[in-house]
Amino acid sequence: METIFLFEIMGTAMLILMGAGVVANAILAGTKGLGGGWLLINFGWGLGVFAGVYVAYGSGAHINPAVTVGLMTSGAEEFAPGIAATVPHMFAYFAAQLIGAFIGAVLAWLAYKKHFDAETDAGKILGVFSTGPEKRAYGWNVVTEVIGTYVLVLLVLMFGETPSELGPLAVALVVVGIGASIGGPTGYAINPARDLGPRIAHALLPIGNKGSSDWAYSWVPIVGPILGAILAGTTVQVLPLLS
Amino acid sequence: METIFLFEIMGTAMLILMGAGVVANAILAGTKGLGGGWLLINFGWGLGVFAGVYVAYGSGAHINPAVTVGLMTSGAEEFAPGIAATVPHMFAYFAAQLIGAFIGAVLAWLAYKKHFDAETDAGKILGVFSTGPEKRAYGWNVVTEVIGTYVLVLLVLMFGETPSELGPLAVALVVVGIGASIGGPTGYAINPARDLGPRIAHALLPIGNKGSSDWAYSWVPIVGPILGAILAGTTVQVLPLLS
Amino acid sequence: METIFLFEIMGTAMLILMGAGVVANAILAGTKGLGGGWLLINFGWGLGVFAGVYVAYGSGAHINPAVTVGLMTSGAEEFAPGIAATVPHMFAYFAAQLIGAFIGAVLAWLAYKKHFDAETDAGKILGVFSTGPEKRAYGWNVVTEVIGTYVLVLLVLMFGETPSELGPLAVALVVVGIGASIGGPTGYAINPARDLGPRIAHALLPIGNKGSSDWAYSWVPIVGPILGAILAGTTVQVLPLLS
Amino acid sequence: METIFLFEIMGTAMLILMGAGVVANAILAGTKGLGGGWLLINFGWGLGVFAGVYVAYGSGAHINPAVTVGLMTSGAEEFAPGIAATVPHMFAYFAAQLIGAFIGAVLAWLAYKKHFDAETDAGKILGVFSTGPEKRAYGWNVVTEVIGTYVLVLLVLMFGETPSELGPLAVALVVVGIGASIGGPTGYAINPARDLGPRIAHALLPIGNKGSSDWAYSWVPIVGPILGAILAGTTVQVLPLLS
Repeated sequence: METIFLFEIMGTAMLILMGAGVVANAILAGTKGLGGGWLLINFGWGLGVFAGVYVAYGSGAHINPAVTVGLMTSGAEEFAPGIAATVPHMFAYFAAQLIGAFIGAVLAWLAYKKHFDAETDAGKILGVFSTGPEKRAYGWNVVTEVIGTYVLVLLVLMFGETPSELGPLAVALVVVGIGASIGGPTGYAINPARDLGPRIAHALLPIGNKGSSDWAYSWVPIVGPILGAILAGTTVQVLPLLS
Repeated sequence: METIFLFEIMGTAMLILMGAGVVANAILAGTKGLGGGWLLINFGWGLGVFAGVYVAYGSGAHINPAVTVGLMTSGAEEFAPGIAATVPHMFAYFAAQLIGAFIGAVLAWLAYKKHFDAETDAGKILGVFSTGPEKRAYGWNVVTEVIGTYVLVLLVLMFGETPSELGPLAVALVVVGIGASIGGPTGYAINPARDLGPRIAHALLPIGNKGSSDWAYSWVPIVGPILGAILAGTTVQVLPLLS
Repeated sequence: METIFLFEIMGTAMLILMGAGVVANAILAGTKGLGGGWLLINFGWGLGVFAGVYVAYGSGAHINPAVTVGLMTSGAEEFAPGIAATVPHMFAYFAAQLIGAFIGAVLAWLAYKKHFDAETDAGKILGVFSTGPEKRAYGWNVVTEVIGTYVLVLLVLMFGETPSELGPLAVALVVVGIGASIGGPTGYAINPARDLGPRIAHALLPIGNKGSSDWAYSWVPIVGPILGAILAGTTVQVLPLLS
Repeated sequence: METIFLFEIMGTAMLILMGAGVVANAILAGTKGLGGGWLLINFGWGLGVFAGVYVAYGSGAHINPAVTVGLMTSGAEEFAPGIAATVPHMFAYFAAQLIGAFIGAVLAWLAYKKHFDAETDAGKILGVFSTGPEKRAYGWNVVTEVIGTYVLVLLVLMFGETPSELGPLAVALVVVGIGASIGGPTGYAINPARDLGPRIAHALLPIGNKGSSDWAYSWVPIVGPILGAILAGTTVQVLPLLS
C-alpha cells in the first residue's frame, strides 16, 4: 500500500505539474511560451507522462485511473510486480492518483504564481487546471473522451507484444499523438484524476481572477475515460480468442 | 486469414482515426488545435502509424497496401511470421486495410462530430477524409505520390539492415519526414487504403455541409503508391546484385 | 582531475553553444529562425543537452552543477566511473562547467556575430546569453527555478530504475519537457553554470548594442537550481525508506 | 568501390530529396506546408538524415564529405566494415555523395514541379537547392559553417563511446539540433555535397523563374565544413592524450 501511494502520488504529481505547466505557459498572460500553440501543449503533456512514468516506476506507473481500470478489465493478475490486481488496491491507486494530481496542480500554480495573478480571463485560469469542451454537448464530449482513452489504454496494454527499447517514451509518444489527433474537441482528459484533481485545486486555491470550476462538466472526463478503459481492457481479453 | 483481418483492420483503423483526427483538429471550425500547422499534422500522422503498428503486430503491421505490395515485389517469403506471401493473402490484406481505414474515418468523424456539424467549408470537410492536390495535374500528382511511397516502402524494407531498438518508432519518424518533405503538393496519401477508405466514408456519412467526394482524383492516391511500392520492392531485390 | 576538466568543459560548451545558439536564431535580427517560437527553443536546448551528454561521457556528463550537487546529496559514491564523489571533485566539476559555459557562449556569439552586430535591442542580446524573468519577483522566480531543477535532477537520479535504451535522449527529452512546461516564467536556467558562464561572457564580449548584464538577477538562477538539486538528492535518499 | 558508389549515391539522394523537399514545402508558392516555419525545416532535414543513413548502411552511411574527412583525420582505419580508409576510397565517397546529392535535388524538383513552375521569387527557388547567408560576410559565414560541422562530425565520431540503441536516430537528432541552434545565419550546409550537388542541379534544370546559382558563395559551404571536419577529427585523435 505504501508503495502504491508513494509512487502514484509522485508520478501523477509530476504528470500534472508538467501538463498544467505547459498549458499555463501557452495561455497565461505574459509567459515566455504565450501563443506557443497546440503542438507545444501536446509535447508538454507527452513529456509529462514520460517524466511521470520514470518517477512512478515502483508502482507500475499507472498515474491514471483509466490505466488501472484497463489492467483490471483485461484480466491482468498484477498492477505491478508484487502488487496484486485487487479491488482494494485499485481504490488505493485511484486515491493516490487523485492526491498526486491535486499536488501537481498546486505546484504548477506555484511555478506560475505571478502569471496567474496577472491573468484576468477566468476561462484561461480554469483551462490550466481542467479540461473543457469547445462545443458543449455532453454526449458527444463523452464519445470523444471514450475514443481517446480507448487508444491510450489499448496501446499501454499492447506494448508488451512488440518489443522495443523505448520504455516510457512509447506511452509518452502515444499521448502526444492522442493530443494532436483526438484532443481538439475536449482537450483530452483521457485520465479522470488528471481532470478532477486539478479541478479541486482550482476550487480551493486563492486565485484572484478565477471563476467557476465548471462542476457541471466534471463528470464527463471521469465517465468517458472509464468507459474507454473498460472497452480497451475487454478488447485485450477478447483478442486472443478471435485471432 | 482471421489474423490478417483482425489485426490489419484494427491497425489501419487506428492509423486513420489518428490521421484524420489530426487534420480535423488542425482545420475544422472551433477545435483546440485550429491553425496548428503542418508539423502538427505531420506528427499526428506519424504517431498514428506508431500506434497502428503496435496494434497490428499480429499481422506484421502493414496497415498500408503499398507495404504489402512492396513486400510481394521484394520477393519476401512471408508477410508476417507464419503468413506466407501469397496472392490470396495479399488481397486479404488489401480488404482488411480498406475496411480498417473506413472504420477509422468513421471514428474520427464521431470524435469530431460537433465540429463537422459546425464546419461550412466543404473542402475542409473532405480534407479531413481524403487527400487532394494543391495544384491539380494528375501526372505530376502521381509523380509526387510515387516518390513519397518509394521512400516509405524502401525504408520499411531496409530497416532490418541497420539494427536499432526503435521498433515502430522508426517507421513513424519516416512518415513524419515524408509528410514534412514530400507532402506539400498532394498531402501524402502514400497508402491507397488511407485515401480510399475515408473517401468512401465521406461519401456515405451524413455530414451536413459536405460536398463532392472528388472521385475524379481518387485513382491518383491508389496508382501512385502502388507504382512507388513496386519500384521500392524491385530496388531491394536488385540491390544485392549491384553491391 | 584532467578528465573532469576536459570532458565537463567540452560538454558544457557544447550545451551552451547550442542553447544560446537556438535563442539567437529565434530572436536576433535577421536570422533564418526568427520568430520560430518556444517549441523551437525547447528543442534546441534539449538537443544541446543531448549533444553535450555524448561529448562529456568521460566525466559522467553532468554539464550542470545542479546534477553534481544532486548526486552529492543523494549519497552517490561516484560522480562517474572512477571519479569519487568528493568535495574537491565537486568544485572541479563546478569550475569546469563554468568555464565550458563561458566558452560555449563565446562560440554562439561567433556563430551569430553579424546578427549580434545588427541587433539593436539590448534585452534580446542579453536574452541570448542569460535567463531573465518575465515578472521580476525574486522569491517567486526562485520558486520556479527550484521546481524546474527538482524535476530535472530527480529524473536524472531515477533514470537507472526504469531500464530503457534511450541513453542521453532521456535527459534531452526531460529538458524539452521542462522548458515547455516550467520555462514560461523565468526561462528555465535549471543550471547555475548555464546562466552565470554566459552572463560573464556577455559582460566581457565587445558587443555593440549590449546593455546591462543584469547582475541583480544573477543569484536567482544559482540559488534556485542548487536548492532544487538538494531537494531532489534528498528525495532519492529518503525514497527507499518510505516504500 | 561499387559498394561505396551504390550506397552513398542512394543515401545522399535520399537525404537531399527530403531536405530540399522540406524547404520546397515550407517556402514555395501554394504548398500545403507553406509558412510551416524553421522547426518544420529542421525536422525535415533531420529525418532526411535518418532515412539516408538507413538506406546507405552498406557504405557506413557517410552521405556527407565532412564525415568522410572527419573519419580520415581521426585516424580511423576503415570508412565502413571492409572498406579501408584510403585516399582513393575517400575520393570515391566524395564523387558518390556529389552524384547522390544531384539526383536527390532532381527528385525534389520533380516532386514539387508544379510549385516550382508557379513560384516567381528566384531567391526562393535557389533556396530550395542551396544554402545562402542572411548576412553576406564570407569570413563569418565560414566561421558559422565550421562551428556547425564541428558539432556534427565530433558527435558522429563520439557516438560509439556512449552506447545507446538509437542507431540512426542519434545523428538525425543532432542534425535537428544543429539546424535549430546554428542554422540561423547560413542555413547549415554542414555538408559540401549537400550544397554543391543541388547547386549544380539548379544551374542545369529548366526552371522557369530561376535566377543566378550564386556561385560566388558556393565555396563557403565547401571550405567551412571541411575545416570543421578536420578540427573534429583532430579533436578525437588528441582527446585520449589529454584525459
